[in-house]
Amino acid sequence: MPYEYDAAIALTPTSEGEFSSDIDGGWLVGSGVNGGYLLGVIGNAVRQTLADANQPDPFAISAYYLSATTPGPATVSTRVVRRGGTVSTVAATLSQVVDDTLVERISALASFGNLDKVDDGDVRTTAVEPVLPPVEECVLSSDAPPELKKFVPMLDRFEMYVDPACAGWAVGKPSGNAVIQAWFKFVDDRPIDTLALLTVVDTLPPVTTEMGMPGWAPTLELTAHVRCTPAPGLLKIRHESRNFAHGFFEEDCEVWDSAGRLVAQSRQLALAPRPE
Amino acid sequence: MPYEYDAAIALTPTSEGEFSSDIDGGWLVGSGVNGGYLLGVIGNAVRQTLADANQPDPFAISAYYLSATTPGPATVSTRVVRRGGTVSTVAATLSQVVDDTLVERISALASFGNLDKVDDGDVRTTAVEPVLPPVEECVLSSDAPPELKKFVPMLDRFEMYVDPACAGWAVGKPSGNAVIQAWFKFVDDRPIDTLALLTVVDTLPPVTTEMGMPGWAPTLELTAHVRCTPAPGLLKIRHESRNFAHGFFEEDCEVWDSAGRLVAQSRQLALAPRPE
Repeated sequence: MPYEYDAAIALTPTSEGEFSSDIDGGWLVGSGVNGGYLLGVIGNAVRQTLADANQPDPFAISAYYLSATTPGPATVSTRVVRRGGTVSTVAATLSQVVDDTLVERISALASFGNLDKVDDGDVRTTAVEPVLPPVEECVLSSDAPPELKKFVPMLDRFEMYVDPACAGWAVGKPSGNAVIQAWFKFVDDRPIDTLALLTVVDTLPPVTTEMGMPGWAPTLELTAHVRCTPAPGLLKIRHESRNFAHGFFEEDCEVWDSAGRLVAQSRQLALAPRPE
Repeated sequence: MPYEYDAAIALTPTSEGEFSSDIDGGWLVGSGVNGGYLLGVIGNAVRQTLADANQPDPFAISAYYLSATTPGPATVSTRVVRRGGTVSTVAATLSQVVDDTLVERISALASFGNLDKVDDGDVRTTAVEPVLPPVEECVLSSDAPPELKKFVPMLDRFEMYVDPACAGWAVGKPSGNAVIQAWFKFVDDRPIDTLALLTVVDTLPPVTTEMGMPGWAPTLELTAHVRCTPAPGLLKIRHESRNFAHGFFEEDCEVWDSAGRLVAQSRQLALAPRPE
């Protein structure tokens, strides 16, 4: 049995640089599919496009979300913009057919390389690893009420143990602080490689939830940098916004591995949920 | 007389969505042209492409730097990926002819909109405005030694007053901290609009300078979010790295206006300068 994430991001090559994908409804959040999962699908297409270059790791990827992707068939088209010795850059588009018309859902650029080849041991991280209570004291995402899980089936894809200090929203008492942090692993213990990190960075509830604004916060743009291959074990993820303005907010996410290394950094620009 | 920045980013439309540009050698840093200036050129092409939509402001732009741009003729090609009421998304490429071959220098994606139209007055910034000494106590960039200015003519494009606490590199005593902050204006007092902010975010010396690693730090990827139209007056710019690893580092830049508002945020992934 393959891990469910691998099945969800699987691609079938259809022609040079083009792949078909079956977008998994298990990653739905309301009526749209989670942007992090879709970034994993696109990253997988880029990785396969560069297979002969042995550059499997997303050093940087930027995705512009154009319209909500729905479960079902999709096409990912890639174009190698530049092949390089350290990194190669690829443009990618995820599209779906709507009423007989091919509609672009996501447009992306990515530079992939090989982290093993650049690893020179010189790491000077001054960012501070998040402090989280033990898993037993945290709020498990898949323990969410059934009515929420029906709306957000994605919650069954992973075990996310949210720091109760940032989970006031879960009991109707948001803290007002634009920070949420949690432990993370896939529900079936799939090891987290550099590709899966593209999904991990976008799995936490939007910080607006804890600011007292429940609801979906559509991503306009998300850029992720993968800096290190994660060690096995639970990850820590933390995201924060420092500049909510005029209905838009940035969200910076950090992912730390069990060896205490900052393995991924991302930033997105998102639209605040609209009042109901 | 037009302001020199406007002359430097000027474009001539050549066909639908295509422009010719004359890349200004005044923005050279060593043998390559500054990435922030080039982002301004690309942003100008996107703005002109969307002129009929009245969406002049770069909400988000991501540029992947493929090879060093040189002064002289260049072509900027744009393609509207999606037109929207709030934002429209455009793909853009800056290319130059090298040995009779068109070489892509920069590949970019951008979502532009109209900041005036989204301004609802609801701003909740928790980021903290940088504290800078008065201009008179700072180190003026254009006072750099002539041998440096010959190598970096860009230093004459603006007046940058660097906080002496972050300018140890200027006297051979880098602090070791990956932070540099300064006051900023264009040398001819050109007002700074949302387009020029794309350049401003990439004008400080790389933080690696203050970490004791002098030299050019090539940008792999830079994403900027413009969040507010700047008020007139000196800007404060500050950038910082928190994760130097394996020869790569991220650099987060904030730009604050004279009204104390966080007007732009950017992050880039760059390559550390190589030891000489």
